[in-house]
Amino acid sequence: MIHSFKDLLEKFEEKFSERIFPGSPANLYDPAQYILQLGGKRLRPVLCLMGNELFNDLTEDAYSVAVAVELFHNFTLVHDDIMDEAPLRRGKPTVHKTFGEDSAILAGDVMLIQSYLQINEVNDRFLKRIVHIFSKTAREVCEGQQLDMDYAALPLQEVGMDAYLHMIALKTSVLLAGSLQMGGVLGGGSEGNLMHLYSFGKNLGIAFQIQDDYLDAFGDPGKTGKQAGGDILVNKKTFLLIKAWELGNQKQRQQIEVLLNNNDPEKVEKMLCIYHGLKLDQWAKEEKSRFMAKAGECLENVAVLSSRKRELENLVAMLLDREN
Amino acid sequence: MIHSFKDLLEKFEEKFSERIFPGSPANLYDPAQYILQLGGKRLRPVLCLMGNELFNDLTEDAYSVAVAVELFHNFTLVHDDIMDEAPLRRGKPTVHKTFGEDSAILAGDVMLIQSYLQINEVNDRFLKRIVHIFSKTAREVCEGQQLDMDYAALPLQEVGMDAYLHMIALKTSVLLAGSLQMGGVLGGGSEGNLMHLYSFGKNLGIAFQIQDDYLDAFGDPGKTGKQAGGDILVNKKTFLLIKAWELGNQKQRQQIEVLLNNNDPEKVEKMLCIYHGLKLDQWAKEEKSRFMAKAGECLENVAVLSSRKRELENLVAMLLDREN
Repeated sequence: MIHSFKDLLEKFEEKFSERIFPGSPANLYDPAQYILQLGGKRLRPVLCLMGNELFNDLTEDAYSVAVAVELFHNFTLVHDDIMDEAPLRRGKPTVHKTFGEDSAILAGDVMLIQSYLQINEVNDRFLKRIVHIFSKTAREVCEGQQLDMDYAALPLQEVGMDAYLHMIALKTSVLLAGSLQMGGVLGGGSEGNLMHLYSFGKNLGIAFQIQDDYLDAFGDPGKTGKQAGGDILVNKKTFLLIKAWELGNQKQRQQIEVLLNNNDPEKVEKMLCIYHGLKLDQWAKEEKSRFMAKAGECLENVAVLSSRKRELENLVAMLLDREN
Repeated sequence: MIHSFKDLLEKFEEKFSERIFPGSPANLYDPAQYILQLGGKRLRPVLCLMGNELFNDLTEDAYSVAVAVELFHNFTLVHDDIMDEAPLRRGKPTVHKTFGEDSAILAGDVMLIQSYLQINEVNDRFLKRIVHIFSKTAREVCEGQQLDMDYAALPLQEVGMDAYLHMIALKTSVLLAGSLQMGGVLGGGSEGNLMHLYSFGKNLGIAFQIQDDYLDAFGDPGKTGKQAGGDILVNKKTFLLIKAWELGNQKQRQQIEVLLNNNDPEKVEKMLCIYHGLKLDQWAKEEKSRFMAKAGECLENVAVLSSRKRELENLVAMLLDREN
């Protein structure tokens, strides 16, 4: 009997609620515990468990890697929030706002180290493979974050859709894909199947990001819990903004440039007007469907009983129909 | 034939001079390459090689771990320099001064990750043990850095010698000890011998730090290449300052407090006068000898032919008689 996302989430949260760090030095470990208890979707660790269960019964090793992946993800949030000067994370003050930047840097470091101590709990016969996937993925996530900062500093016209997609794949998708893949390795999946599973994760990640951008612009703030057009307000380069520039005529491009360079109080409304004029809401839905379809094909290619895949299919539907 | 420190240093530098990181994204990997080529004593990686050779012929695995250890050490320097707002490292602008803080944070992160990719090259049968020692040591180094920041913020009278020694052991000694120990594991040393080797490294590290503090206060700037009394100028808590407080009479303590709270242009001279009055130059030499003797005993307890230990003994003498 394959577990649903919800079941696995509960199981994971139970493991993850055990205190991971020692109590002292408090100024090092309190910031780490702080972000862990802020919650989150726990998508990556559960994907690791699902990757395992796609091929075989759940193992303790998969839980160890799941904890490592969630620790790693939270480490990236702590350091990214410093770089982005973000005041809030999940509606609460960020680690560096609460404990100071120095402690946030060091707490992030120790979370990354701790993630390897978790990885190190897996069975010897899997260890080298898992350390390799985990580290390669981690390095790619750093590359994605650097490219994101690089692109943020570039004028809009110099960031094409392909470069943007590459950045998103590194920053977001590879960790979803790697989590599934590591779970698959622990479940004994064959090389071919693991490759398909990885591609499934990468496409899912991109569809997921498109949905994020869509919700930020067109979602219902009552449901998302976020300010409508938050990305627009801070000139964030999103799928929508890059596509708007790509599709826009000369007049629309001029309007976009003016909006990016001024603090027009009606910035969000005016940008949304351009987006609607270019039918980007429709486009985003189609793009999301396109990547979902790609992901679906990859999952189809995983040669296991279709009953084993059902919960992953359910998860995809849930993630991409979400309104928050 | 056992190699000398100098021979092993040359061999290590040859390995380490190969480019470790890819070229792109340049803003991520250039800062990492930048600090690696600033040089350094390469003490930790060579200790790893010496730990290996204490028990057996040098192996490729020891070089992999040596590279990992040096990468890790440089990662800590990049992040510590941000926290300490240090403008210079080895006489050159620090990474964050050269590339900005965001890139320095991220470059440090990717160096830490890369160190695990190096670790992952060791033979399967050693991998779990090495990942464990490496990660445990890495976590302790973070604890040491946090305690260092904690103590920096405390009034002098609240930092006792025991607490200070504990901090130094974590911040400096455990990485020397862990490097030796990992080399010893790869050389096939027995548990008992590895324990003695680890204790040797810990005592050596403390003696090394005492020598550092001694040279900063009493060394010849022409030889150290550093400003005389640099630690005094920035109120750094050192062995000497903590001992001065411990030994000082009421008048001397008052003088110390005044010097710590004012920007007296003769601060260095006046503090050195107190140090000399308390004979701290003599005391530091004795303390160094005491920890060296402890280290020597630990090394004696390592049950291998004494000819195999000779190069480690030579290294100790070299490190502790150094004038820079």
